[in-house]
Amino acid sequence: MGLIVQKYGGTSVATVEQIEAAAQRAKQARDQGHQVLVVASAMGKETDRLADLAEAIGCGGPQARRELDALLATGEQASVALLAMALLRLGAPARSFTGAQADIRTDAAHTRARILNIDTAALQAQLDAGTVPVVAGFQGADADGNITTLGRGGSDTTAVALAAALNADECRIYTDVEGVFTTDPRLVEDARRLDQLTYEEMLELASLGSRVLHGRAVEFAGKYQVPLRVLSSTGDGPGTLICAENGKGNSKMEKPLISGIASAKDEAKLTILGVQDVPGVASAILGPISEAGIEVDMIVQNVGADQNTDFTFTVRRGDYAEAKAILERVAGQLGAAQVTGDSKIAKLSLVGVGMRSHAGVASQMFKALAAESVNIQMISTSEIKISVVIDEKYLELAVRALHAAFNLAEA
Amino acid sequence: MGLIVQKYGGTSVATVEQIEAAAQRAKQARDQGHQVLVVASAMGKETDRLADLAEAIGCGGPQARRELDALLATGEQASVALLAMALLRLGAPARSFTGAQADIRTDAAHTRARILNIDTAALQAQLDAGTVPVVAGFQGADADGNITTLGRGGSDTTAVALAAALNADECRIYTDVEGVFTTDPRLVEDARRLDQLTYEEMLELASLGSRVLHGRAVEFAGKYQVPLRVLSSTGDGPGTLICAENGKGNSKMEKPLISGIASAKDEAKLTILGVQDVPGVASAILGPISEAGIEVDMIVQNVGADQNTDFTFTVRRGDYAEAKAILERVAGQLGAAQVTGDSKIAKLSLVGVGMRSHAGVASQMFKALAAESVNIQMISTSEIKISVVIDEKYLELAVRALHAAFNLAEA
Repeated sequence: MGLIVQKYGGTSVATVEQIEAAAQRAKQARDQGHQVLVVASAMGKETDRLADLAEAIGCGGPQARRELDALLATGEQASVALLAMALLRLGAPARSFTGAQADIRTDAAHTRARILNIDTAALQAQLDAGTVPVVAGFQGADADGNITTLGRGGSDTTAVALAAALNADECRIYTDVEGVFTTDPRLVEDARRLDQLTYEEMLELASLGSRVLHGRAVEFAGKYQVPLRVLSSTGDGPGTLICAENGKGNSKMEKPLISGIASAKDEAKLTILGVQDVPGVASAILGPISEAGIEVDMIVQNVGADQNTDFTFTVRRGDYAEAKAILERVAGQLGAAQVTGDSKIAKLSLVGVGMRSHAGVASQMFKALAAESVNIQMISTSEIKISVVIDEKYLELAVRALHAAFNLAEA
Repeated sequence: MGLIVQKYGGTSVATVEQIEAAAQRAKQARDQGHQVLVVASAMGKETDRLADLAEAIGCGGPQARRELDALLATGEQASVALLAMALLRLGAPARSFTGAQADIRTDAAHTRARILNIDTAALQAQLDAGTVPVVAGFQGADADGNITTLGRGGSDTTAVALAAALNADECRIYTDVEGVFTTDPRLVEDARRLDQLTYEEMLELASLGSRVLHGRAVEFAGKYQVPLRVLSSTGDGPGTLICAENGKGNSKMEKPLISGIASAKDEAKLTILGVQDVPGVASAILGPISEAGIEVDMIVQNVGADQNTDFTFTVRRGDYAEAKAILERVAGQLGAAQVTGDSKIAKLSLVGVGMRSHAGVASQMFKALAAESVNIQMISTSEIKISVVIDEKYLELAVRALHAAFNLAEA
């Protein structure tokens, strides 16, 4: 008996039937004695439809971003009204809230606003009265009452922020998957649903291509220690609980070595060969890239014997051509020997908090890849992650080999 | 050089192209030196689409009406954001406003709220800065910040209310017709666009089937003496000015006898024969009808010689069967002789302020109908209107005959 925040994504409220099913699920939790607050995204492809209309009119600039926010916010406003209606229809008291009505105050950075604070008085009053507040995800209002949106994936952030502000017992993210898996089940047949993992592990998995949860929401949940559960909006499974290593809800005694394997296609790498190894070179190379709005992922630099160095980084494949052109210009200025690149690479990462205290994960990983004759082009590590770049064509093979080598199919 | 309110209905903003055309028109007025405020309805069939979703979930009750309002309001919110974007794109400063943001305060009667007052400070500040405020029609917010809607046709009311509150020089209603005509141009080929008419005439024409403008908006305009112009959103014609008989903008010296002929199909009449002519009979008959939510239009009662009376009234054709069943139950209770009815009737009305001071309009009307052998089943009159009920099959013939008899094709 506590407060549960339930969040339904666009694919979970795409039709009237799905909205009714979500309402049924919210009512069920309420019938079990919980206080329930629901956060919902826009129905199915509604946000895309609205964005396409804006695109057709095609206006940029800060004022247009204000209007884009007002436009996009209507998607969630409609779905929460419908969800509230469906709850009322089932006999459960319910009340929809826009972001502004829920007093979700954000900064004024339209289309990518950050939540500054939430005055929960109105929501708490509804909860105390036994009513289910149904809050529009993805949106808020700035100090002047302008409608703002939090950027894609913002509904997850809304749910976690409300759970934190209301001190909820759990924030449940309903989605179209059964939970978080050891790796992509489309790649590995015996990929296994994880019962639980830590915020850090989830962050590494999310940012690496397991796009179940928005990274920002996970970060937020970790910061405020909100237990987060990812589960299916159609099934009845327990899903995956994401919580602190020693926090509320965590029942595991021993950490497994590896929690999961993330993989990302659509990557490309670029190398600038033979640049002088002097201070300022890295920023001279990456400055123009980031100014062009190109996101850089992995960065590797090796110092050679002769005062020269090779500098390699990865970008999204769609940015490859532009990044290469910029790099060739920069290479001329820096007197570099050559620019090379490869747009057919993939990234693969082992993630697990157990790695911290267990040596030998990296060598076991490299051995497993070598056994399949997969050449490793780049390596990058963090405390709970080892990432490698390989030829794209070996991706499935490599993921399956590692999944087997680390016995991930077994709990 | 003054303040112009422009209102674009759903058929005038149904597509991106139409939104761009509306923005172009607003910019043009601004370029001519006017201050411009735009009010817009939801795009095309958007309100219907949203209402269908609500219908599919199918919840009634006052709380559901709150949610229905929150849902329907998104239609206008989206279109004004797009219109503001289109204006920005054209280089005209613009800013969208929801009803709540425009401080349109209403009562709490969801789905049929009434505007209580408008705090124009925010809008006036934008106008003074040369910005075009683009305000969502049809909506407002109650004292608690709940989103309300004004009922169908409410966008016209929003435009007129804003024009009144801001003391605008003219409120222009852009629509898919060239203006108000002497009669339905689909019935009479030489129907003529009226240059101007009075609020009272427009009210009689609107409520009688010339569905160009919402009656409530005309009433509002009349009350606050807001000059109202109906014009085409595609053409460049002057449209029709609706103003006070001796008010601002009225240039006519002499009133014509008749301004126009309104007609309405889809009507039905019901008669209860041989009821006692005693006080309370009329309410005993009509009470149960109105309790069933059936709107009654014309009511005629004739006193007979024998203390008994016949009581006749008209309803919408769709309500005929239900009204007849109610009436038969009432007839039994009142000891009435019989209930008869006819669901194949039409109503036809001559409207004109000139009627007030000219006798003989009625007899000229009846003579013209008799000349075509059209039998008159009911007659009802007001100061500026004469209505008759006739067999539906004579409707076109009768309208043409009267249009000719009163020379309405000539200015």
